[in-house]
Amino acid sequence: MPNSPTVRRMPTYLHRLFRMRNDGEQFVSSSELARYLRIEPIVTRKDIAMTGLPGHRRHGYVIDELIAAIKDYIGWNDKITATLLGAGSLGSALLGYQDFPSYGLDIISVFDANPDKIGQDIRGHRVFNIKLLPDVIKLNPPKIAIICVTSDAAQQVADTLVSLGIRYFWNFANVSLQVPDDVIVQREVIAGGFAMLASKIKYAEKGEHFNLGD
Amino acid sequence: MPNSPTVRRMPTYLHRLFRMRNDGEQFVSSSELARYLRIEPIVTRKDIAMTGLPGHRRHGYVIDELIAAIKDYIGWNDKITATLLGAGSLGSALLGYQDFPSYGLDIISVFDANPDKIGQDIRGHRVFNIKLLPDVIKLNPPKIAIICVTSDAAQQVADTLVSLGIRYFWNFANVSLQVPDDVIVQREVIAGGFAMLASKIKYAEKGEHFNLGD
Repeated sequence: MPNSPTVRRMPTYLHRLFRMRNDGEQFVSSSELARYLRIEPIVTRKDIAMTGLPGHRRHGYVIDELIAAIKDYIGWNDKITATLLGAGSLGSALLGYQDFPSYGLDIISVFDANPDKIGQDIRGHRVFNIKLLPDVIKLNPPKIAIICVTSDAAQQVADTLVSLGIRYFWNFANVSLQVPDDVIVQREVIAGGFAMLASKIKYAEKGEHFNLGD
Repeated sequence: MPNSPTVRRMPTYLHRLFRMRNDGEQFVSSSELARYLRIEPIVTRKDIAMTGLPGHRRHGYVIDELIAAIKDYIGWNDKITATLLGAGSLGSALLGYQDFPSYGLDIISVFDANPDKIGQDIRGHRVFNIKLLPDVIKLNPPKIAIICVTSDAAQQVADTLVSLGIRYFWNFANVSLQVPDDVIVQREVIAGGFAMLASKIKYAEKGEHFNLGD
């Protein structure tokens, strides 16, 4: 059973491992990875243990094996197709996220309601009119929907997508989507990170020493 | 001592409470908030207990009191000034995030190295040339720095900011910033959410029932 903070750290390990592999390295120790993430080595050792990969006593982990084990653990071995709703600044940022292809995320369609966006090419993706959503989704169904529309529009867009058979959502809109029980929503709350930082500031300035993690 | 998942949920509670207050409501129950977040009521009760606010047996919580208790818990009672580095699509998205002012986040300066961005007005913020960073920061020092530059540029920008006395970073660049021990970095890993979603998909499709949380 995956554990939430562990899962969230995995892309950062992968990012580092990809770079090390590109640099021609073959082995990595848990303490090297921990130092990069600025966390305790025991946390990294436990994270890697979750993937089921045994360490090598002498050399640490084989980078290729660790990459494969992490990808398998978080379900990134298979390609995951996606449709992206909302080609504003946040949607554009996601379209430009360079690591997504190596994580298996393949954005196959992009929609917006804004006439200035429709028909434009954003980082190699042509923006469809949102009115074409049912037609395009039926023709080329994605596994997940990435919601980057305004919070006012998000529920209606989600309802349409649910009716079209989409069962997995990655929601960046500032609203908690109300969907059937068998639909899974992963919600990103940008302000959650700011709450973490503000807490850390508050306690740091009170002179308390602690580590909240991420 | 704040707890990380609890802190991350707080902005979502606040978002809901602000809306309820705007609708003229005075009281809220933990189960109403839990239903909105689609989590177990016991989780919400524990979250609220962390703030130290006692519930009212009959009416639940007084919305105004709960807002104040949450803000105090996560350190959002005081205004937090920020400088934003990188006015690309992600930086622009953050500049347009409507809830930040009610969370006390005040972005007082914006920088970019791109001549197409410098001097532009983005959502009411004039973009400064990054070369002016030392001068502007000395003149108008912010509490935190929000890093939205490319991963290649992030470390150098962070080094400059540290040398200018900045002690708190909110880092959106896809790199783990190496900073002195007394500097606090809150890192946002966009792909962390995608790892969570991919895990949930993997286990859902194996027919396992579970709740990973966020």
